[in-house]
Amino acid sequence: MVSKAVAKYVQQLHQKKYRQRTGAFLVEGAKSVRELLSSGLRVERLLLTAEFAASPDLPALLKGVSVEVVSADELTRLGTLQHNDTALAIAHIPDEVPLVAKPGHLLLALDQVRDPGNVGTLIRLADWYGLGGVVLSETCADAWNPKTVAATMGSFTRVRVWQRSLPEWLAGLPKDLPVYGADLHGDNVHRQQLTPKGVLVMGSESHGLTPEVEACLTQRLHIPGQGGAESLNVAISAAILLDNFFRHL
Amino acid sequence: MVSKAVAKYVQQLHQKKYRQRTGAFLVEGAKSVRELLSSGLRVERLLLTAEFAASPDLPALLKGVSVEVVSADELTRLGTLQHNDTALAIAHIPDEVPLVAKPGHLLLALDQVRDPGNVGTLIRLADWYGLGGVVLSETCADAWNPKTVAATMGSFTRVRVWQRSLPEWLAGLPKDLPVYGADLHGDNVHRQQLTPKGVLVMGSESHGLTPEVEACLTQRLHIPGQGGAESLNVAISAAILLDNFFRHL
Repeated sequence: MVSKAVAKYVQQLHQKKYRQRTGAFLVEGAKSVRELLSSGLRVERLLLTAEFAASPDLPALLKGVSVEVVSADELTRLGTLQHNDTALAIAHIPDEVPLVAKPGHLLLALDQVRDPGNVGTLIRLADWYGLGGVVLSETCADAWNPKTVAATMGSFTRVRVWQRSLPEWLAGLPKDLPVYGADLHGDNVHRQQLTPKGVLVMGSESHGLTPEVEACLTQRLHIPGQGGAESLNVAISAAILLDNFFRHL
Repeated sequence: MVSKAVAKYVQQLHQKKYRQRTGAFLVEGAKSVRELLSSGLRVERLLLTAEFAASPDLPALLKGVSVEVVSADELTRLGTLQHNDTALAIAHIPDEVPLVAKPGHLLLALDQVRDPGNVGTLIRLADWYGLGGVVLSETCADAWNPKTVAATMGSFTRVRVWQRSLPEWLAGLPKDLPVYGADLHGDNVHRQQLTPKGVLVMGSESHGLTPEVEACLTQRLHIPGQGGAESLNVAISAAILLDNFFRHL
């Protein structure tokens, strides 16, 4: 059993205000915790079950980490997963590096994507294509929300993330930097010769892009469909668009 | 308040065995119910709140449907959504049309995709690209599971779905029909001239394709990535692959 103070701390980290106040966040489940321990991120505390502690690869990963063995029931009670019989870690939110839109780099920007599962999937996608990072509007789900972290499937350890007022940030970019956005009335993405530099902005499926963000776009892109569906989920659309940026390399 | 018999019937339809026994399934929420009422699918019963009943477009959609007004609390209690203040319908599972892999048609086949949210997203994607339909292995989530239906965002009304033993079905296809599958060691999808005919088989992210299904592939396709993520979610991968089939039209 963990102490009352630790239990309270873990439960506070379910909430954004405590993550902001403490600079810490939760990582849950075997895959995510393994990725965390293999990364350069600082781990404050690790709770794990005896079964998971017995994994042959674990001792090499644990050097210098304060570990406590707990039951699966306790782990599940403390965390946010429906069931957790492996591990839960408290880690430090990495220091922010300067957000610079470099030439030769593609950044993904998300406008009002409120679902943490979608934000996590998009961070994972940014990792797949090796993007320069993901810029979240202040109205997006928090990158360090446990559900976001889980959906990244470990990519939270590799992808740089910033939270910004998108209209302000976009307005301050060099004028020759392309800013792409998805739009049902945009140019057919299959007919463009896209290269991965600039910014691709994706809005939420239900709300689209905010007008201030839309005003900053230099090109609108459309994914041609042939069937009856009116739209695609934001992560699905982003995947298809990103793939079109990387096909000419 | 609905009668006890109706309440029991709705709750039974949460389960696959009762859906199979009765040939009925649940449709929940404003968007899905509107799509249902605009489709040719038979609606057995519709429960809706007074607020939703007052929507101006509704009377035209309701012709011939047996309607009962209930409270949002009751709707939420009866259904599977976390909150439902609009509508819940009981509809008939459409009769199966013959499953024929026509030349000039692309079919999507899913092997062991157990998550209903993923299956629903994939059905929606099939609708976007106007595919010939989706063939589910017997180990996939049920197409008429309320979570699958919700994730299709209305595409359940348009996309044909079959459930089959995939190895048997694939083995019986004409020998000249291409059968594609996703594989990390497959051919770079960006370097192929793909046309939308044949079958694209997608396995689950955690289990991949079963060996019997893999043995039926005629070409393996790989999505080149540049970053650190080891894999992509099955719906994301399918979206990218499908887009590559439709870019030369």
